[in-house]
Amino acid sequence: MNILRVVDLIVKKKNGLRLTKEELHFIIDGYVKGTIPDYQISALLMAICFNGLDKEEQVNLTTEMLESGEQIDLSSIDGICVDKHSTGGVGDKTTLVVAPIVASCDLKIAKMSGRGLGHTGGTLDKLESIPGFKINVSSEDFFKQVREISIAVIGQTANITPADKKLYALRDVTGTVESVGLIAGSIMSKKLASGAHSILLDVKVGDGAFMKTLDDARVLARAMVDIGNSFGRKTVAVLTNMDEPLGEMVGNSLEVIEAIDTLKGKGPETFTNLCYELSCELLMMTGSVNSKEEGFQLIKEKIENGEALDKLRQMIKYQGGDVNVLEDYSLFPQAKTKLEVKSNVSGYVEKLEALEIGLAAMVLGAGRENKDDIIDLGVGIQVLKKVGDKVNAGDVLAIIYSNGKNEEESKNLILNSYKFTNEKVSSNKIILDLIR
Amino acid sequence: MNILRVVDLIVKKKNGLRLTKEELHFIIDGYVKGTIPDYQISALLMAICFNGLDKEEQVNLTTEMLESGEQIDLSSIDGICVDKHSTGGVGDKTTLVVAPIVASCDLKIAKMSGRGLGHTGGTLDKLESIPGFKINVSSEDFFKQVREISIAVIGQTANITPADKKLYALRDVTGTVESVGLIAGSIMSKKLASGAHSILLDVKVGDGAFMKTLDDARVLARAMVDIGNSFGRKTVAVLTNMDEPLGEMVGNSLEVIEAIDTLKGKGPETFTNLCYELSCELLMMTGSVNSKEEGFQLIKEKIENGEALDKLRQMIKYQGGDVNVLEDYSLFPQAKTKLEVKSNVSGYVEKLEALEIGLAAMVLGAGRENKDDIIDLGVGIQVLKKVGDKVNAGDVLAIIYSNGKNEEESKNLILNSYKFTNEKVSSNKIILDLIR
Repeated sequence: MNILRVVDLIVKKKNGLRLTKEELHFIIDGYVKGTIPDYQISALLMAICFNGLDKEEQVNLTTEMLESGEQIDLSSIDGICVDKHSTGGVGDKTTLVVAPIVASCDLKIAKMSGRGLGHTGGTLDKLESIPGFKINVSSEDFFKQVREISIAVIGQTANITPADKKLYALRDVTGTVESVGLIAGSIMSKKLASGAHSILLDVKVGDGAFMKTLDDARVLARAMVDIGNSFGRKTVAVLTNMDEPLGEMVGNSLEVIEAIDTLKGKGPETFTNLCYELSCELLMMTGSVNSKEEGFQLIKEKIENGEALDKLRQMIKYQGGDVNVLEDYSLFPQAKTKLEVKSNVSGYVEKLEALEIGLAAMVLGAGRENKDDIIDLGVGIQVLKKVGDKVNAGDVLAIIYSNGKNEEESKNLILNSYKFTNEKVSSNKIILDLIR
Repeated sequence: MNILRVVDLIVKKKNGLRLTKEELHFIIDGYVKGTIPDYQISALLMAICFNGLDKEEQVNLTTEMLESGEQIDLSSIDGICVDKHSTGGVGDKTTLVVAPIVASCDLKIAKMSGRGLGHTGGTLDKLESIPGFKINVSSEDFFKQVREISIAVIGQTANITPADKKLYALRDVTGTVESVGLIAGSIMSKKLASGAHSILLDVKVGDGAFMKTLDDARVLARAMVDIGNSFGRKTVAVLTNMDEPLGEMVGNSLEVIEAIDTLKGKGPETFTNLCYELSCELLMMTGSVNSKEEGFQLIKEKIENGEALDKLRQMIKYQGGDVNVLEDYSLFPQAKTKLEVKSNVSGYVEKLEALEIGLAAMVLGAGRENKDDIIDLGVGIQVLKKVGDKVNAGDVLAIIYSNGKNEEESKNLILNSYKFTNEKVSSNKIILDLIR
């Protein structure tokens, strides 16, 4: 074999050529071992941002990242293990609803989740607003929990995809995050390492998401689905709207409360619909149901008879949390004050920018600007008027739940996020496309 | 002023936007000071390779690199100080001829030169094949020498353009060398820092050069000329052929001998012509002569009356070298053996790849593969058959001057560098274009 030189591989990619499996192995292996320095990898990453990775390169990169660390083996768990991943949005608490629903329908959901950064929240942060809830669970206890109650949502136990962690940290500071091949490889290596048989991807599209347009989202979804399938895992992507926040609540305690309401059958319509659609897709892709009608009927049954909510109760109990929160929301971390944000104008809501609402919640303390920031679990925003709603001047658009931090800035961000028109506007469609 | 974040500037360039003067200052200043790490700069450099730098960015980048170090002030030297720069080629010993010619025509040439790397040689290495010749000269002695004899060619005395040095080292290992804006900024910052009033750029075009096509070379030349002129320095670029080696000799002693021959009026025709053209351009751009005819006449006079050769003699003497080399070439470092490389076929020489000949000399020890390699000043190659020449099987194509290292490899490289045809071929034109 020829001796590989990193600079030659950088130039190869710069010139728009394919990197072979051996070359990608050489690069990722050398980077993880520290024999290839950051400055060569960042130049390569930028060349990839411009010239892309083809399907074969994406699969090979994913393989290298997957094999750089531990891989969870779920084969000791009977039944069908499913996983769900969202590319991240504002007010996205779907996991807290979908996981209990599908667990109540006899699927197993053994999920490792992440923390929030920037304008998007993380499921782990949300769960920690339940007093006593533990997200650090040993591998053994994690497996035992899934075997016994079919559901667990925890932080990462194993050292999975260290190559991706190192690459992601570098991409974050070198302007090389946005590249389909790199994003797809990063997400899919983690999902594959987590071991589920069936993987449902919720690809967010719009102002508040990574992918701003439906076309871009389709390309990313296609890439991820193809990678998943090439590893023999059933993979489906649902493209969902993130032009406005999901549901009414943005903020940790607030979002958990909204999720509980939804499991009680009392959630906001659009958000409820999204959760049902995602759950139904998981039931269909695993063959648990044969049609969408059958799936929706089963889901409604599990909501109405309380079995879905009961799965959440079981999980909270198993992971040390206080199950009384399900009935008594005052047990959640609270905000001291509520401030109404009123409209100065009348009209129909034409736009409600999710990104701005996410930032409005972040500045209150609901999210992290930097990795080490400590977040305030009680604060957040309740969005009362959404796209398509009629508003009169003086109407309350949103409520700020605050503990005194940056209220004015948050209010301005909220007001800026609304765009009004005199014409009637239809509400946003939540499901935009499905990629199998 | 807003706080600048490097990652935002990388993304800005990645998105094809212009970097402002302040932003480029922030980047270069931070990089030189070490507050901005290599891995961010290399990502930015790669984005520049794809999206380029516009004229204003090029001037601003050049300014930042120029101002990162010392600048030579030649104002204490009476007369017109000129400088000449070649982008580098195989067998390029023009400085050793042009500098004495123009010095004999009353221009001042205070030149700092470089060492060779890879398949191209460096003027300093060539000069060091003259026994006793010193290239390390103090600034004071350098100025004194130019004042007294109008000519000096030395190594860098001052710490000029440290930003360029640091950037170049990074570009070299990250596949980001080839970018017009970066190349132009790198060359011109050094030329501007060296202080000459008039700068002549010899931009090599072809297989053995950085710029493979005339179009690419024109773009680079235009960029450099515009930068030079925007700093108030008269700048002209001559585009010259580097599809085949320049002259017959490749190797340090051999090239100095060929330069001396040329100053005696006995050099190879094409090489002589190039030296006269470059010298004439310097005479014209400084107003020393009014026409090309006048220039060529003056140059021929200085060759015939020996004044040009005498300038080289004065320089050698001033810098401690043995002037007897001018008459007795056996005083140069010698090669122990001469090997004839004979043609296996008959035909006209259609191509003679300069790059391969450069490598064939390098493997003998005439050049450096790595910066710290020690070179053998006596070895090299004499190319007897050039493009357009008729060759019969068994004719000697080239002579290898060897001290026993890699002779076979060198011979194969030479044979590979020749392409023959049965059709008659015209010889290469040496001057391809002029950019003012």
